[in-house]
Amino acid sequence: MSKLPLLPPTVIEPIIRLALNEDFGTAGDVTANLLIPEKATAKLYFKSRDTGIIAGMQAAVMTYHMIDPSVDLRVLKGDGSAVTKGDVIAEVEGSVRSLLMAERTALNFLGRMSGIATLTSRYVALIAHTKAKIAATRKTTPGLRALEKRAVLAGGGNTHRQSLSDAIMIKDNHIALAGGIEKALSQITENADHMVRVSVEVDTLAQLEKALPFAPHVVLLDNMGPDKLRKAVAIVDAFDGPRPTLEASGGVNLKTVKGLAETGIDIISIGGLTHSATNFDIGLDAAK
Amino acid sequence: MSKLPLLPPTVIEPIIRLALNEDFGTAGDVTANLLIPEKATAKLYFKSRDTGIIAGMQAAVMTYHMIDPSVDLRVLKGDGSAVTKGDVIAEVEGSVRSLLMAERTALNFLGRMSGIATLTSRYVALIAHTKAKIAATRKTTPGLRALEKRAVLAGGGNTHRQSLSDAIMIKDNHIALAGGIEKALSQITENADHMVRVSVEVDTLAQLEKALPFAPHVVLLDNMGPDKLRKAVAIVDAFDGPRPTLEASGGVNLKTVKGLAETGIDIISIGGLTHSATNFDIGLDAAK
Amino acid sequence: MSKLPLLPPTVIEPIIRLALNEDFGTAGDVTANLLIPEKATAKLYFKSRDTGIIAGMQAAVMTYHMIDPSVDLRVLKGDGSAVTKGDVIAEVEGSVRSLLMAERTALNFLGRMSGIATLTSRYVALIAHTKAKIAATRKTTPGLRALEKRAVLAGGGNTHRQSLSDAIMIKDNHIALAGGIEKALSQITENADHMVRVSVEVDTLAQLEKALPFAPHVVLLDNMGPDKLRKAVAIVDAFDGPRPTLEASGGVNLKTVKGLAETGIDIISIGGLTHSATNFDIGLDAAK
Amino acid sequence: MSKLPLLPPTVIEPIIRLALNEDFGTAGDVTANLLIPEKATAKLYFKSRDTGIIAGMQAAVMTYHMIDPSVDLRVLKGDGSAVTKGDVIAEVEGSVRSLLMAERTALNFLGRMSGIATLTSRYVALIAHTKAKIAATRKTTPGLRALEKRAVLAGGGNTHRQSLSDAIMIKDNHIALAGGIEKALSQITENADHMVRVSVEVDTLAQLEKALPFAPHVVLLDNMGPDKLRKAVAIVDAFDGPRPTLEASGGVNLKTVKGLAETGIDIISIGGLTHSATNFDIGLDAAK
Amino acid sequence: MSKLPLLPPTVIEPIIRLALNEDFGTAGDVTANLLIPEKATAKLYFKSRDTGIIAGMQAAVMTYHMIDPSVDLRVLKGDGSAVTKGDVIAEVEGSVRSLLMAERTALNFLGRMSGIATLTSRYVALIAHTKAKIAATRKTTPGLRALEKRAVLAGGGNTHRQSLSDAIMIKDNHIALAGGIEKALSQITENADHMVRVSVEVDTLAQLEKALPFAPHVVLLDNMGPDKLRKAVAIVDAFDGPRPTLEASGGVNLKTVKGLAETGIDIISIGGLTHSATNFDIGLDAAK
Amino acid sequence: MSKLPLLPPTVIEPIIRLALNEDFGTAGDVTANLLIPEKATAKLYFKSRDTGIIAGMQAAVMTYHMIDPSVDLRVLKGDGSAVTKGDVIAEVEGSVRSLLMAERTALNFLGRMSGIATLTSRYVALIAHTKAKIAATRKTTPGLRALEKRAVLAGGGNTHRQSLSDAIMIKDNHIALAGGIEKALSQITENADHMVRVSVEVDTLAQLEKALPFAPHVVLLDNMGPDKLRKAVAIVDAFDGPRPTLEASGGVNLKTVKGLAETGIDIISIGGLTHSATNFDIGLDAAK
Repeated sequence: MSKLPLLPPTVIEPIIRLALNEDFGTAGDVTANLLIPEKATAKLYFKSRDTGIIAGMQAAVMTYHMIDPSVDLRVLKGDGSAVTKGDVIAEVEGSVRSLLMAERTALNFLGRMSGIATLTSRYVALIAHTKAKIAATRKTTPGLRALEKRAVLAGGGNTHRQSLSDAIMIKDNHIALAGGIEKALSQITENADHMVRVSVEVDTLAQLEKALPFAPHVVLLDNMGPDKLRKAVAIVDAFDGPRPTLEASGGVNLKTVKGLAETGIDIISIGGLTHSATNFDIGLDAAK
Repeated sequence: MSKLPLLPPTVIEPIIRLALNEDFGTAGDVTANLLIPEKATAKLYFKSRDTGIIAGMQAAVMTYHMIDPSVDLRVLKGDGSAVTKGDVIAEVEGSVRSLLMAERTALNFLGRMSGIATLTSRYVALIAHTKAKIAATRKTTPGLRALEKRAVLAGGGNTHRQSLSDAIMIKDNHIALAGGIEKALSQITENADHMVRVSVEVDTLAQLEKALPFAPHVVLLDNMGPDKLRKAVAIVDAFDGPRPTLEASGGVNLKTVKGLAETGIDIISIGGLTHSATNFDIGLDAAK
Repeated sequence: MSKLPLLPPTVIEPIIRLALNEDFGTAGDVTANLLIPEKATAKLYFKSRDTGIIAGMQAAVMTYHMIDPSVDLRVLKGDGSAVTKGDVIAEVEGSVRSLLMAERTALNFLGRMSGIATLTSRYVALIAHTKAKIAATRKTTPGLRALEKRAVLAGGGNTHRQSLSDAIMIKDNHIALAGGIEKALSQITENADHMVRVSVEVDTLAQLEKALPFAPHVVLLDNMGPDKLRKAVAIVDAFDGPRPTLEASGGVNLKTVKGLAETGIDIISIGGLTHSATNFDIGLDAAK
Repeated sequence: MSKLPLLPPTVIEPIIRLALNEDFGTAGDVTANLLIPEKATAKLYFKSRDTGIIAGMQAAVMTYHMIDPSVDLRVLKGDGSAVTKGDVIAEVEGSVRSLLMAERTALNFLGRMSGIATLTSRYVALIAHTKAKIAATRKTTPGLRALEKRAVLAGGGNTHRQSLSDAIMIKDNHIALAGGIEKALSQITENADHMVRVSVEVDTLAQLEKALPFAPHVVLLDNMGPDKLRKAVAIVDAFDGPRPTLEASGGVNLKTVKGLAETGIDIISIGGLTHSATNFDIGLDAAK
Repeated sequence: MSKLPLLPPTVIEPIIRLALNEDFGTAGDVTANLLIPEKATAKLYFKSRDTGIIAGMQAAVMTYHMIDPSVDLRVLKGDGSAVTKGDVIAEVEGSVRSLLMAERTALNFLGRMSGIATLTSRYVALIAHTKAKIAATRKTTPGLRALEKRAVLAGGGNTHRQSLSDAIMIKDNHIALAGGIEKALSQITENADHMVRVSVEVDTLAQLEKALPFAPHVVLLDNMGPDKLRKAVAIVDAFDGPRPTLEASGGVNLKTVKGLAETGIDIISIGGLTHSATNFDIGLDAAK
Repeated sequence: MSKLPLLPPTVIEPIIRLALNEDFGTAGDVTANLLIPEKATAKLYFKSRDTGIIAGMQAAVMTYHMIDPSVDLRVLKGDGSAVTKGDVIAEVEGSVRSLLMAERTALNFLGRMSGIATLTSRYVALIAHTKAKIAATRKTTPGLRALEKRAVLAGGGNTHRQSLSDAIMIKDNHIALAGGIEKALSQITENADHMVRVSVEVDTLAQLEKALPFAPHVVLLDNMGPDKLRKAVAIVDAFDGPRPTLEASGGVNLKTVKGLAETGIDIISIGGLTHSATNFDIGLDAAK
């Protein structure tokens, strides 16, 4: 998974800090403080209790580091690694109080991000025989976008637009307010910066035909079934001009994704990768 | 839902700020800036596309407020309200640029929190005929605990411990490191502050019997099926001393919860309420 | 003092950062910059100029660490240690500019926290022959609660409630607004989370008798003298039901505390531990 | 008290935010949420329970504002006002939940700052017949310097240096490291910025005589009794050159201050104004 | 200037807060506090002392708002407006202390941003007869990028890439490390997200010819004079495939820009727009 | 340059964090992530492309440290060093991804600060034969004051007032609002803290004569040419009382500065040092 970025520490530190603050309250781990001797040390094992793809390890490492830099966390299965039940994904050694204090926050990051990576990998596997790619959306958990987008990458997906400022997406509301798709596109063509991509959402094939002459970089085909998508691909193939990337979106699920991917489109974007992934079960155990 | 707290603004502002920062990047909404006239105003409607319980409205309101205090957001279905598909849950009116800029962040909060409230309400409904109550755990999304715990309340559940510092929970790791359940409990009894509750996790009925004489406030019965729980209740009923609250936990799901609740226990705590709830679908539409 | 927690660094870093910012202004230590060569190093000694109990050392260590991680600070008398005039409590070695730059902030933390620990230890000594314990309140210096509560622990006291969210305390205002002590208690009994303690404040013995049947975990006996407290203890002893922890509060001082403690109550909570402790004198000297 | 500054809101907001965060934990005021109806409103009164000078009102107002901007707080006795027991110093009206949620934090600010103002005013009164003025030091509570310096102003004192960067103070450590008072002063004279004041600490009259030719703006006479101070004044009066401001410092208390002030010095600086002031008792009551 | 974005307040608030903190120190405006009565009000005028284009007004407005929301600032010449010496660009009315306290910070924002807008407009005017556009780079003042990019827009320029994460730019270092321009481009073509633009920097015409078959969206022609640029345009015109946007960069100045623009290229990017603009003189005067 | 301060890390960390955040967006360096192998390391060289004085190195070092503490940055030409074209000023070695990720931010700090140091050094050289000194003003880039003042020091200049709170400067607006220069000065004399310097701005020689009897520490002679300044010096020389420091200000440039300095004044303050310095060109190269 060589293209997996190491996120800059400054990008993820604020959300880890928030997470630690909310778990420590004013006094930290009152249970451990009363039961665990200050100097006690131990070695514990992060173990997978499920089958899937790991993600969120960078946040877990940083969580321990922010609590206690003397804790040693060795990653055995980094982000993007496939694991099965019982696999040790990391070993952590140091002050018991520190190990316990950071446990829940580290597990919450790992469980959520590995859940996203695992779900993504299931979609990716279902369409591996086509040229289509799976992409996330901006429907991410507030404050966790960088981590969740990276989890999608770990699962074999693509990130799509990261923020409102790094690409232009003309949606139905914009088209309505701008007075039609042609007005919207011509306004964009004249004014958009040369370093941003332009995507336009179309609900009908008629809109698609109106959009093509403006040479948008991407056309988002919203809520179309396989038949309609196939027609869209045909229209684009027949068009004499630059070919946009074709993206399908809207209500995609594990049952429908194969049919959509086989129509010849390029990208399938799925909000559910991030907004409806469930937890991947990982535990922190005393024994390997 | 009168007991639903209005969270102090200072508690949730940091996560909203992080969410806005990640969605705006350096330049904000480049699409709207190019297409929407600066002075254009509109009225839009948050509409439910599903059946369930609303939560996250306070965060949505604050999201708009932080972007543009002149936007007027009227809440029609506040947190804890039951809605069905098509219900308008809020109206928002003001600068179109502001409405669009905050849309995704507001929807991400509403979708996630309403998903949690709705899932909680399904558990609550299944055990309404018993005395048992549903409770969340600390398995919440990093940085969003206050909002997610509140969403559980909105769905009819209980919050459980909010942080490591506001109650004592003696778990298997603590017991092992302290040298047995009796040593752990006696150490806690001598030293715990009079304002914190003490909970102890037991894996066996033998452990339960050892724990009772120390008068813990709560006993967490970990990973026990209905039969074992019934025996645990019987042991406690027969004990001559203060009765602890009995809490069941571990791998609870929508199929097993009823059987557990009918054993006579007091609390069922479920990590999945927060770590595996899926998105509740809400849209921002131009028409009612 | 094994139960003294090491506070998570993320909890105390913000107040140390504020303290450094206010002491550095825009340019840092202009005097040292003009007088002390950049490479000069020295070893200096934190010395007690008084008799009492040390606290605040964790904040002092972190203050130096945030200024200059290469400074070496060795703690000789950690939090909770008893010292007398002239005792060296820590040695600090490194760049002279760094040593001077952090001096005042470190001393301000040590002086205030050791003042609180010392005052607490005086109260604790006065009632050591009784079963009563001394506890702090929420009357702490804004922004310094975690450190001040820990200083109370260092002096042998208890922390009491850490924040508004980790226990329920029903006070006179709540009772008045809820329509009487019985209404307030029954409302709480039905709705309180199973992981929070419930305390109720009573001003009269009649209120105490009304409160007992609701089985509050703690009863706060407000502003009662020894005679009244003794009667309260007798009422509770005669009550056939769960015995609440009995806490006395209100205007306690070093003269009255012994009389109160000998009445048989469990806890004496004292705002003055934190809001009226005076500075404990510590200096940073060039010679041992 | 016309010279009392209104501190810029950005200066004091961070400490108020810290204070609120530590008091709210994750969930805010769980007691009020369970007992007080969401829409209940009330009017409460901040009343003095002691005689002295008020300070900290700006922080109290901002505390309420940050919790709930709809709360109306009317200040009757602003910072610098003299009050006696029973005086209403402010009225606050609005949502009961908001009133209670902010109560403790607001009172903690008012109690601490009024304590400092009151103590300062006692020193000021004792030396009103002399030309000497009372000044604070940098021995302030970490994070609260701006507020505590303002409280000293409210009590009739002076602020002295605000931070390490806004004036030069040559202390004994600097002198030792620079190789004597003359070397230190000549180095400063050559290099100091024209907009900063230069103060030098002397422990002996011999040092004073060495310092005068360098025309320091201020000479700090450290730990000298009245007799020695009188001799110092005489030396300065006899010196043919610019007269520095003469400041006495070191172990000043309410018994010694008068004698020091009558020696003809200009300034008496007292760490105890801020580091050893005790709480001024203020309550929030339901009735005027 | 309809496409000028209103930056989200959350994006620019942090830099304004830093600016205010550094200008206030611990105590705010000590001069105004001593000389200006607390209740004094005035109306002052921001007046241009030069000819050019205004920018930075949003930051100026927010500066006043953060100090004192009751100050009324009316903008007469918004960002992008052309002004000449003596023009009133804004009126500000309210508490004199507030007006003075925010003055320097507001002027520093306005002077810097208007300097950038004015310099940009000079470049834009010089090439208005060509199809080429002027664009900024990432050579902006640390912490001020959003404001400086917006100032370039106000002056008629384009923003270019906003951050490292919103477009791909393959530079000489990347090419060297990837093993040649063809390897670098093929690696990117396979892996880049469909929503990001790809730009590649070429130093020679030979590199340009190697790059074209990979269909990069933008080719950056680095440090080429007019003759070489004309040849580059001819090569691209003759190429049978998608035409990239052609961008010239490297050492552009007011003397050379016209010659470069007349070669047929699309974009000229200039670091000097932001890193070497000088201040635009604006004053805050008592009279119109 | 021994008097150059090492700024406390806490002072400059916030602006570096802002700078990194704006350059990383949500995902960091997408180009390097796709092209550079995760484990690739390299050694690169910061080289001067111009002749002048280096400043900003501390910020550059901290930028790398915050991204990746394992990067090794060796400074060869520290702040205040004179360099010529081709000089290697620092070597940086480590992960290529880290080197590239921090490159632009580090260069933006170095380029801006070295530009200020270099411009300052040109002014300083022009007046080296006089007793006058060059000083900066508060016309600094918002958020960068500490770094820019330090760059002025590196260039041989003085810092002047750092913030509104560390010295008193009575300007024309204050004088007008206070009712004349004499009223303003007498009000200040009575109330100013003994640790702050007092400066008064005069526009005419008549004002100067009125000001002298109040013994201001500094008189700022605003917008006066050499002749008028010479007269001002004569007036002060003839005055029988304490001599204030004489500072000239207003529209000073590289052509006029010599004439002003030769009049006998002490300080020349120049806003242009910070608000109109242009970038000093430094590159990060693969070869020495």
